[in-house]
Amino acid sequence: MTTGTVLGGGVVRKLSVIRRYIRRALGDFSGNDGTMSFLNKCIFAVIAVSLISAVIETEPTLQNALPFIWLNVGFALFFSAEFVIRLWAFTGRYHIDGAIKRLPPDVRGILALDLVVVSFWVGSVSEIFLLRFLRLVLLIRLMEVPVIAAALRDLAAAVYSRRGELAVSLIFAAIIMFVAAVALYLIEGRIQPDAFGSIPRALWWGVATLTTVGYGDVFPVTALGKCAAAIFALAGIGVVALPAGIFASALVDRLGKTSAP
Amino acid sequence: MTTGTVLGGGVVRKLSVIRRYIRRALGDFSGNDGTMSFLNKCIFAVIAVSLISAVIETEPTLQNALPFIWLNVGFALFFSAEFVIRLWAFTGRYHIDGAIKRLPPDVRGILALDLVVVSFWVGSVSEIFLLRFLRLVLLIRLMEVPVIAAALRDLAAAVYSRRGELAVSLIFAAIIMFVAAVALYLIEGRIQPDAFGSIPRALWWGVATLTTVGYGDVFPVTALGKCAAAIFALAGIGVVALPAGIFASALVDRLGKTSAP
Amino acid sequence: MTTGTVLGGGVVRKLSVIRRYIRRALGDFSGNDGTMSFLNKCIFAVIAVSLISAVIETEPTLQNALPFIWLNVGFALFFSAEFVIRLWAFTGRYHIDGAIKRLPPDVRGILALDLVVVSFWVGSVSEIFLLRFLRLVLLIRLMEVPVIAAALRDLAAAVYSRRGELAVSLIFAAIIMFVAAVALYLIEGRIQPDAFGSIPRALWWGVATLTTVGYGDVFPVTALGKCAAAIFALAGIGVVALPAGIFASALVDRLGKTSAP
Amino acid sequence: MTTGTVLGGGVVRKLSVIRRYIRRALGDFSGNDGTMSFLNKCIFAVIAVSLISAVIETEPTLQNALPFIWLNVGFALFFSAEFVIRLWAFTGRYHIDGAIKRLPPDVRGILALDLVVVSFWVGSVSEIFLLRFLRLVLLIRLMEVPVIAAALRDLAAAVYSRRGELAVSLIFAAIIMFVAAVALYLIEGRIQPDAFGSIPRALWWGVATLTTVGYGDVFPVTALGKCAAAIFALAGIGVVALPAGIFASALVDRLGKTSAP
Repeated sequence: MTTGTVLGGGVVRKLSVIRRYIRRALGDFSGNDGTMSFLNKCIFAVIAVSLISAVIETEPTLQNALPFIWLNVGFALFFSAEFVIRLWAFTGRYHIDGAIKRLPPDVRGILALDLVVVSFWVGSVSEIFLLRFLRLVLLIRLMEVPVIAAALRDLAAAVYSRRGELAVSLIFAAIIMFVAAVALYLIEGRIQPDAFGSIPRALWWGVATLTTVGYGDVFPVTALGKCAAAIFALAGIGVVALPAGIFASALVDRLGKTSAP
Repeated sequence: MTTGTVLGGGVVRKLSVIRRYIRRALGDFSGNDGTMSFLNKCIFAVIAVSLISAVIETEPTLQNALPFIWLNVGFALFFSAEFVIRLWAFTGRYHIDGAIKRLPPDVRGILALDLVVVSFWVGSVSEIFLLRFLRLVLLIRLMEVPVIAAALRDLAAAVYSRRGELAVSLIFAAIIMFVAAVALYLIEGRIQPDAFGSIPRALWWGVATLTTVGYGDVFPVTALGKCAAAIFALAGIGVVALPAGIFASALVDRLGKTSAP
Repeated sequence: MTTGTVLGGGVVRKLSVIRRYIRRALGDFSGNDGTMSFLNKCIFAVIAVSLISAVIETEPTLQNALPFIWLNVGFALFFSAEFVIRLWAFTGRYHIDGAIKRLPPDVRGILALDLVVVSFWVGSVSEIFLLRFLRLVLLIRLMEVPVIAAALRDLAAAVYSRRGELAVSLIFAAIIMFVAAVALYLIEGRIQPDAFGSIPRALWWGVATLTTVGYGDVFPVTALGKCAAAIFALAGIGVVALPAGIFASALVDRLGKTSAP
Repeated sequence: MTTGTVLGGGVVRKLSVIRRYIRRALGDFSGNDGTMSFLNKCIFAVIAVSLISAVIETEPTLQNALPFIWLNVGFALFFSAEFVIRLWAFTGRYHIDGAIKRLPPDVRGILALDLVVVSFWVGSVSEIFLLRFLRLVLLIRLMEVPVIAAALRDLAAAVYSRRGELAVSLIFAAIIMFVAAVALYLIEGRIQPDAFGSIPRALWWGVATLTTVGYGDVFPVTALGKCAAAIFALAGIGVVALPAGIFASALVDRLGKTSAP
């Protein structure tokens, strides 16, 4: 045994320990105690910061306020490093070909997304934004904290248990929106061709009115049109309140069952 | 027995089998398993497509995008064929006179509607739209899938069980809307004659405000008018929330009773 | 006994029967079976028609569409006659002085209102409107149909049982509206003096935003103002949903208790 | 014993009684019977009046309507007197240095705020407003009327018991708002650079739409943008209804548990 071999063996052993530690830290999105590892929290924070940076970057008046070019280089380096380390931690290799087969199935998706993100960052393409967003969504999916997972299951169960009523109420909402649009098209189509000149155009009014958003870009001007719009608006409140009411009642029911015993 | 007669008898027998099959398929809107027959699904799909086509057809900027004239001819042929087949399947005849008496009562309505639809399609009249819509509504009525039927019964029972409270809350809503309109008419009627110059005009403002649609075409400009409008808007939220709250509570109650045992 | 006296006695007796019948019919707003007498229904209908007529009368473009002058004369005669008949039916006299003391206390209010209404109708004053409205409100008060009365008691009991929570949620709503107005006044007061130049002006924006009416006559234009407005709008949804939610839950609770046993 | 000494002793004794009485009255924000002392009610009323005065003072058109300068001098004197009396009542001294150590801990905060308020009033600074508001908030905090305190505890417990579901629903709301803004930024960014030229700008639209405020200063104009906006508006209703529904259901649950036994 030479000192070199021993030293090499020590390095290898040390690297192996580090690798195992990183693998555990990266994989530990959801411990039994409902927390993420510190490493994952850091990665999550950088993703959030890069997301905010990408959002602000689009604002013309702020484009000279921050050194976005250096921030992007920094994010590109960070995500590249994360990609290489994750690849190495889970497969022991630094390059993709041949390593993919060794990957656990649930890590492959993250890595593939990582690769796309990195390639976009490196390419400095400005519209990479959506991909980073997808990545965040993925993290949310993985962030299966027990309490949130239970809440999600309750939500899904609530929707599922009332799927019939929800479908009916949505059909009601669609019908009233449709009828309202047809009515206003027939009443005001010739007077305001830009606003009600076709049923799709009248549907834009219908959505804006029955959701009570009411931008005010489109509204009836004739007496008959106003009467019809008033009736549809008043009826629409009830119909639009239906799905929310059913959903809330389903949740009450569900949560009552869950927390009762 | 000649071969011709045998052949003729075979054709008749085959036709009779087909007729029975079609009759069963057309009549089978709601099986015990809550599904429509494949034939009805196809008819329903064509109705939906023709509906969407008729909606898009009204849009001036898209009128050259699709060969609507050929689509309309196609729909006219399809619905004519459906009419003739349905008539034959249920009565054994291809023409209307004399066949109607043989029709089962619940098929007559569909056929009458079919006839109107076909005549309008053939006439290429553009406003036939509403009739096709009625037809869709009829289909929805017939689509008595068990789970939806139960949901509808629950909805109706919920409304019925709280009819007193719902009536009271609707009376409250009407009164506050009326009082708001009268108040703004008295306060702003002379300053904004176009917007508040009469009580019906002020009612348009009242509906737009208390449903929280708020188009922004009409709003008070004086200090007193703004104070009054603010008070009515704040009070209106509660009053408009009343019917929805009562309705939701009725549903909770009803669904709790239904699913409990 | 002369025939005259006998005839006179017969007339008096007949009048006495009619008077008793009218008194019963006028007083019978709410029988045990929850219905109004036919006479009261007629009076109610005329009041409704006169109300609608008075509403339409204010519309300048419709003022020549109906002979409002003759309608008003008709309503004046009707209400005058009703007043005289009611006075006679309850007191046996046709003129007011001396008769008032004989009136049952709960009829006096109606008659006083009647007198004002009649005097206004006769005077052809156009703004009498509000008084007729008050009369309708009075009728609604008297229309104590059992089911509606029970519903009203439930509503009142629901509000009373949660008065603490409702007060707290209303205080929350007032505070957030106040803070929002002050914030926007400080942020945008100098940039948009017309819209946010004072706290009362900013409160108009606050009410329009937090009730989600959003007329669009007033909105922040600076980046900071938009950020603040967005945060207040998002927070305001929850706060505005609070009273309605508490109210609905109180009703659920109340109605559950009422209908359970 | 001279009469002077006796008289002096009597004055001291009387002052001591008054001091004790004032101390009790000032400290008695929440008796066991849930009421404030008369003295505290008076102070509260003056604070409310000074608050309203400060609000109205900001309105340019009303600045000559009331003698605000004398009102402010009056409020300054009142709050100065209150400060000195409170200091004396709790410590027996009229000046701050040395007295603070003697103060009960829960009175120090009020006095410190009082001092700031007084200094601002005396300085006649117009923006002191927020501080007075803080003072009102403090009073609300102290106004621990049993029924309101219980309601607040119920509210807090309701939020806490559903913190998981509320967090999930808020995350959903943030995601849909974010996705909507990105979509409209991609679709309409080049056509309406002022409205959708950056993601932060599009977020302003997203907040205005999904809260259903709908000012109408920003809305999509292209067909694709309108389609996307309609879908997001319809989906947003459900998502925005989620937290309110969960919150209401939590309250129902909580209040049911509290009032049941």
